[in-house]
Parts: sequence; C-alpha cells; structure tokens
Amino acid sequence: MTSTALLTDMYELTMIKAAMHAGTAFRRCTFELFPRRLPPGRSYGVVAGTGRALEALRAFRFGDEELAFLRANGITDPELGAWLADYRFSGNIRGYAEGDLFFSGSPIMVVEGSFAEVVLLETLLLSIFNHDSAVASAASRMTLAAEGRPIIEMGGRRTHEQASVASARAAWIAGFGSSACLEAGRSWGIPVSGTAAHAFTMLFDTEEEAFRAQLAAQGESTTLLVDTYDVDEAIRTAVRLTEGRLGAIRIDSGDLSTEVRRVRKLLDSLGATSTRIIVTNDLDEYQIAALRGAPVDGFGVGTSVVTGSGHPTCGMVYKMVSRADSDDRSAPQSPVSKKSKDKSTIGGQKFVLREIGDDGIATAEVIGVGVTPRSDSNDRMVMVDLVRDGQIVGTEPLSEARARHERAIAELPLPGRKISRAEQAIPTVFVDETGRPVDNVYVAGKPPANL
Amino acid sequence: MTSTALLTDMYELTMIKAAMHAGTAFRRCTFELFPRRLPPGRSYGVVAGTGRALEALRAFRFGDEELAFLRANGITDPELGAWLADYRFSGNIRGYAEGDLFFSGSPIMVVEGSFAEVVLLETLLLSIFNHDSAVASAASRMTLAAEGRPIIEMGGRRTHEQASVASARAAWIAGFGSSACLEAGRSWGIPVSGTAAHAFTMLFDTEEEAFRAQLAAQGESTTLLVDTYDVDEAIRTAVRLTEGRLGAIRIDSGDLSTEVRRVRKLLDSLGATSTRIIVTNDLDEYQIAALRGAPVDGFGVGTSVVTGSGHPTCGMVYKMVSRADSDDRSAPQSPVSKKSKDKSTIGGQKFVLREIGDDGIATAEVIGVGVTPRSDSNDRMVMVDLVRDGQIVGTEPLSEARARHERAIAELPLPGRKISRAEQAIPTVFVDETGRPVDNVYVAGKPPANL
Repeated sequence: MTSTALLTDMYELTMIKAAMHAGTAFRRCTFELFPRRLPPGRSYGVVAGTGRALEALRAFRFGDEELAFLRANGITDPELGAWLADYRFSGNIRGYAEGDLFFSGSPIMVVEGSFAEVVLLETLLLSIFNHDSAVASAASRMTLAAEGRPIIEMGGRRTHEQASVASARAAWIAGFGSSACLEAGRSWGIPVSGTAAHAFTMLFDTEEEAFRAQLAAQGESTTLLVDTYDVDEAIRTAVRLTEGRLGAIRIDSGDLSTEVRRVRKLLDSLGATSTRIIVTNDLDEYQIAALRGAPVDGFGVGTSVVTGSGHPTCGMVYKMVSRADSDDRSAPQSPVSKKSKDKSTIGGQKFVLREIGDDGIATAEVIGVGVTPRSDSNDRMVMVDLVRDGQIVGTEPLSEARARHERAIAELPLPGRKISRAEQAIPTVFVDETGRPVDNVYVAGKPPANL
Repeated sequence: MTSTALLTDMYELTMIKAAMHAGTAFRRCTFELFPRRLPPGRSYGVVAGTGRALEALRAFRFGDEELAFLRANGITDPELGAWLADYRFSGNIRGYAEGDLFFSGSPIMVVEGSFAEVVLLETLLLSIFNHDSAVASAASRMTLAAEGRPIIEMGGRRTHEQASVASARAAWIAGFGSSACLEAGRSWGIPVSGTAAHAFTMLFDTEEEAFRAQLAAQGESTTLLVDTYDVDEAIRTAVRLTEGRLGAIRIDSGDLSTEVRRVRKLLDSLGATSTRIIVTNDLDEYQIAALRGAPVDGFGVGTSVVTGSGHPTCGMVYKMVSRADSDDRSAPQSPVSKKSKDKSTIGGQKFVLREIGDDGIATAEVIGVGVTPRSDSNDRMVMVDLVRDGQIVGTEPLSEARARHERAIAELPLPGRKISRAEQAIPTVFVDETGRPVDNVYVAGKPPANL
C-alpha cells in the first residue's frame, strides 16, 4: 500500500507546527469520531471502514517524497519535518467493531495519544468512515428489503474508481451477496459475479447468435440479458436454446413490478420453471421493498448503494473530548468541549453498552461519559480495542464483520427494520457515573438539541 | 501508478471470453460515453476526469498479480489470459475537452477500436467521469454563486480518501481557489490552504494562548477560528493581539447571514477594517448565493461539493453506437442502437459543434449523427483527439482545463447561470447529413422522450 500520509488536510500540519512552537503539541488528548445524528428517516447506521482504517494507519508514513513536497511548499519547518519523518502512531484506539450498528452520538472511534499524533489522523479516518459507513448503512436497508434474496453490488461505474472497491466491501459487510468489481474480489476476497451487457448482444448480427455464444462460453446456468430488443422474443429464444434449462434472465428496464410477473408467467408457460429472474435498473431499498411479493430471484444494485441512497456521507466528525493540563505523559485528562452554536460536543471518554432485553432485542444505546455503564446479563459492551500502544490489535477477517452485522440486525426491534421513514430504532442515552442520564443530553430516539 | 486493470466489472471479461469463442471479439466498434440527461433543475454540466482517464488508461495493464487472480477464480481461460497480458489500447478516442460544459446527450467520449479492447474500458472510464464531472458540475455553480470571492475545497473528510483528491482536482477546474487536501497539492499542483480547527483552541488553557501560538507560527496574515467559545470575545482578543492587522477570521457555525453582518461591524468598530471574513458550515451553492450581499470575503465548502450537491453521480453511460459487420479491420461500421424501454440509444458516430451567436453567447449544442455539423464563423467544434492509434495525445496541464471552463461559462446565456431550478441552458439538437434535426431526437432544452 502506498503512503496515505498526504490524504490529510493541510491544517492538521499547521496546527501541529504552531503547537510545537508553543510547547503544547504533545499534551495527551482524546479525540472521538462520531456522527452527530442519523440521516432523517433512518433508524440505524452500520459501521464500516474499521478494517480499512487500520490498514491506512499502517501505511500512514511520511517518506522522502511526501516530506519533499511539504518542505518545498513551506508547510513544514525542520522541527515538524523531522517529527513527521519518524511518525508512527503510538497511542490507543478503541471503537465500535466493524459491521455493528451505530446511532446518534455513537463514539465510533476513540483515539488517545499526544495531540500531534492524534489530530494528524483526523482527515483520513473521517474520509474512510464517512464513506464506507454511508454505503454500508444504505446496503443494510437493501438487504433487509430483499428478504433473503441475493443482491449483486454493481455500482462501481457510478462512483470514484477506488471508492468503488470500498463500496463493494461495505455492501458485502451489510449482507450483499457479491460484487461486479474485480478489484473487490482481489483486495477483499468478495465473491465477484457478472455475465453480459447490452453491447454484447449488439455485437452479433442476431440476438440468437449472441445468446448461443454466451451459452457456449458460460454454460446453461448463465444469466441472459433479455431486454436489448424485444423481451418476449428474447425469452422464447433463450428457453428454446437451452431446452428450458436456462439459469436466469436479467431485465434492466421498464416497470419491473408488472414486467416480472408477466415474464414469470411466460417462462413457466414455456417450461422454464426453474429459470430465475434477476432485475436491475436503478434499484434502491424502496423499489426492492416494492418487489416484495413479486417473482424476483435476485437484484443488482448500482447507483443507490454506492451513493448511500440519498446520504452519500455520514456526517461523522472528529472532536477533542479530553486533554491533559500539562505535557507530562501521566497527567490526568479532563473533559473539554466546544460551544459553537448547534455544534457543541460532549466532553469526556465514552464507554458504550447495548442494552438488550430478555427477548434478545436491543432497547437502548447507553453511552457512559467517563464511566463504563452498568450492564445486565443480556447487555453487551460495544467497543473493542483496535490499537494498543501503537500496535494494531483489531484486524479481523472481513467475514467477521459480515457475521457481526447479521447478529446486530437480529437485535433490532421491529420498528427499526422499517424501510419507510422511521425514528431511530433505539434511544441513545448518555449516563454519568451514577448510571443516571446526563441531564442535558438525554436522547429519546432523536439527537439532543445540543448534540 | 499501480495497475488500474481490475477496476473493472467482471462482465467485461466474461463478454470478451464469449466473443472470443464466437469469433466476434475483434470486430471494430465505436462506444460512446454520454449522460442521458442533466440532473433535474441543472442548466449545464462540467466535463471533468479527462486527464485522470488518460492517466488511468496508461496504467491499464494486466500484470502477473492481476492475471493470477483472474486465473485462480476461473474468470480467464488461457486464450483470454494471453490476450489480457498483452493488452494495450490500440484504438482512437475523441472527446469533450476537460473543463468544457456538457448537456443532455453530449458524447463526452467516443472510443473506437476492437470490441474487446473498447468494452474493457467501460467501468473505469465511467467511474472517473461519473465522479469527477458530478463534483465539477456542482463546484461550477458554487463558483458562479460566489461572484469572484475565493472558495476553498475542504470536503476530503466527507468522501472516500482517494475520491477526495479527485474532488479537489475537479473543483479546481471549476473555479475553486484552493483545497485543504495535501495530496491534491502533490498530485495535481493545486494550491493548498488551511489554518486551524476548534481542537487547536481547545488544546490550550485559554483561547488567547491558542491565538498567540497560531500568530507566532503563521504570522498576522493567518485566519483565526473565532467560534469555539464566544465569537465576540474571540474577535476582541484577536484584534487586540494583532493591533487590528489580523488577516482573517473564520466562522463555522450559526446563522451566517446575520452573523457576518454583525461581525463585520464589530471588526470595523475595533479598527480591523481590512480583516477578512471567511465562512464555512455546510455551505452549498444556495447558501453561497444567499450571502450575495453579505460582507463575506471567502468561503470554505466541504460536503456539498464532494457529493455533487445532491447529485453525487452524473448518470453517464457507455454504449455501443456502431460496429463493423465482419472482423475485417477495414470493414465499414454501421450504426447500432438498443431499444430497451426508456433507455434506447442513438446509433452512429457523433460530432459536436457549439453554436455561438454574434454576441459570443451559446445558442445550441448541435450533435451531428454520422456527420460533422455545418458551422458559422462564431461556432466552435467541441471534440478533440485524446488518443490516436493507441497513443495518448490529449494530455494537457490542468490549468488549461480551468481556463477552458472559465471561457465556456462566459458563453452561457444568462438564464443558464441561474442557481435556482433552471432548464438546460441551450438545447441539444441532433442533426443528420442534411443539417436538419433528426426527427425523433430533437431536444428543446430537455432530453427527448426516447433518449
């Protein structure tokens, strides 16, 4: 992996330079990465990006090329340049495990170390979580709407070419079955799939020749795209060529809800009763939900998943929540918060418990401010160690994140599974050391006024 | 640059494999990359991505690692593997020059070569143009709304970390003044800027200490962030410390429209009459336009520009528009088109002229189907050669694209500069060899019914 160090906003470096001169750059601090609120109408979000963030952290190194650029542009002075050359994050990171759900104010990541080493990671961490979690949050709703029928992620062409790979990864965590993107297969071991586009049919003099060529190369289990010219004629041809044994057809246009019913009848009448119907065509979770009773066997989703279905970013922010009063490494940290209008933060280290009822269903996201919330037997602690004293300890196979997502979804109360406009699935409650809600930040399914 | 070859949908390879077996893989074809329509309410789009696409084309090579992955997953057979190993695009590409405007149906790129070599580029080209042009299209509207006041792109943290760099590039083409992203500075020479975040202020025991530290490191021309605690108090401190010579203040919260007027008065009353006011806080083109008469000297824009201000992708597609009837390299190509419901394409090679009136204002986008439109003296041909016989000839400095954007915007009719909901600025007209509009695809400021 090439260096990720310059995927950083310039002001991180100007702040560190100024703090170095002032002698405050190495005060111990804690920063928190959190979403102020869920997008309107969403009942939960899905954490994605953790594994990529840990990889990016490993590659966060200022090499000769990076340092030369910074020096040539007057961004570093010799002291800052020397410090960057040796930069290795040496602090601690705790956070939500990948695939788990998040809610308003959830401390997705808590990063602790010297001000300089912690603030420097702001841009990169936010980029990764804001993107990947937006995609996973949308994908999870599509997975719910599909009710077990497989979804292929095929949106790579609708987003930046590298975001494409990260999108495939995030969608897979959130339950998609495969991706069209080859690099997602190579980088992350995600199952890849794909058959043919309209251009393939158009390459041949007749549709029948195109189908024959595809069947010869891919076998009868393949998926034939049937809407380049006339759908019914294409289906008759496809069934005839395979004597009814065709694996699947794909429809990429028209009013799918009526079309699939008609097409199912036609396939059945021709004896192709086990030929599956795959639909694509600007689908999102609402259209998938609308096809609930329809004879659809699989979905391909593109634009809407890679663009977060209306919410392409999560609005996560990275804020200082506590710091030491001196440069002494062992000095205790005190909570700090800013008071900007509508953008204030809640100071203090956070510890999170998902309160789970006897029926296994979540009832609250309890965030202890400076304290670990008390737990009952069913409750589970949400945060895990990701980096300890600079050592990455949170790496896991991607399949773990996918399995965790599935378990976390199973804990959702029924109203939280609604695809239509919903409230937050469970309330976020900030508690103090007495276990009682912190007065001014109680969140009843909504972000508090001052969060 | 590492290989871009696997940033490709799997079906491009399954199609090529099947076509190879059928003997049609090397028929000469022409594919066109075009947007079916502009997003609702937009009067124009901005082409961005061309320079990146040419770089990505140069890096589109299947090395040992890529080939091993494909072989291991049964995606390639020996014949396809051998062909990919030698893959070098050998065809021709013409297209809109970067920074120019586009409209419904504009053939942004026309790619000609063998079916196999041309179809293989589909995913990567679409990813780049769909992303970069979405950002540039949004950025251009913000530039118009800012009426000459500089805009800083600071949205890297809201999008995928690599999309961040491409976004900074696209925004700069469309008139932004600088970017917060260091990698955008290194990769593309874009001016970078940035000063401090709230965390910097919170690192110190008092706001005054923080301001002193920043002034010491960056000088009095710096921008001090004044809304961590109390805005008025911060401004008084900042002016006092610099004896009124402070470069700028930044406000990142509150109702900016009333706030900046109040703050301007305060600065003036304290004698800091030349201290500039920079505003940030989830700005988009509408909020920038709403600050038209306000004493704002510069804007920072994040989320809205990197997410295309409501339209994070352009909906560009890549479709076969003509092909030869045989594998003979010199066989003439005939137009082809698909007839899918609501998604039909217009067959044939396209050549584009921007019709310009005597006043220098554009009046139509004239697209010749299979023919070069006749031009008058003021008109200009829109497409340029980008690749000839596999040789990249369209590389240019990024500043060319930025200058071209500025010139193209100067040609826009006044209603086309509206930030509020508008029709397409000029009509798209498809013409045939007689110069007359092609009957069924005349576009009067709107996409035709069948486009």
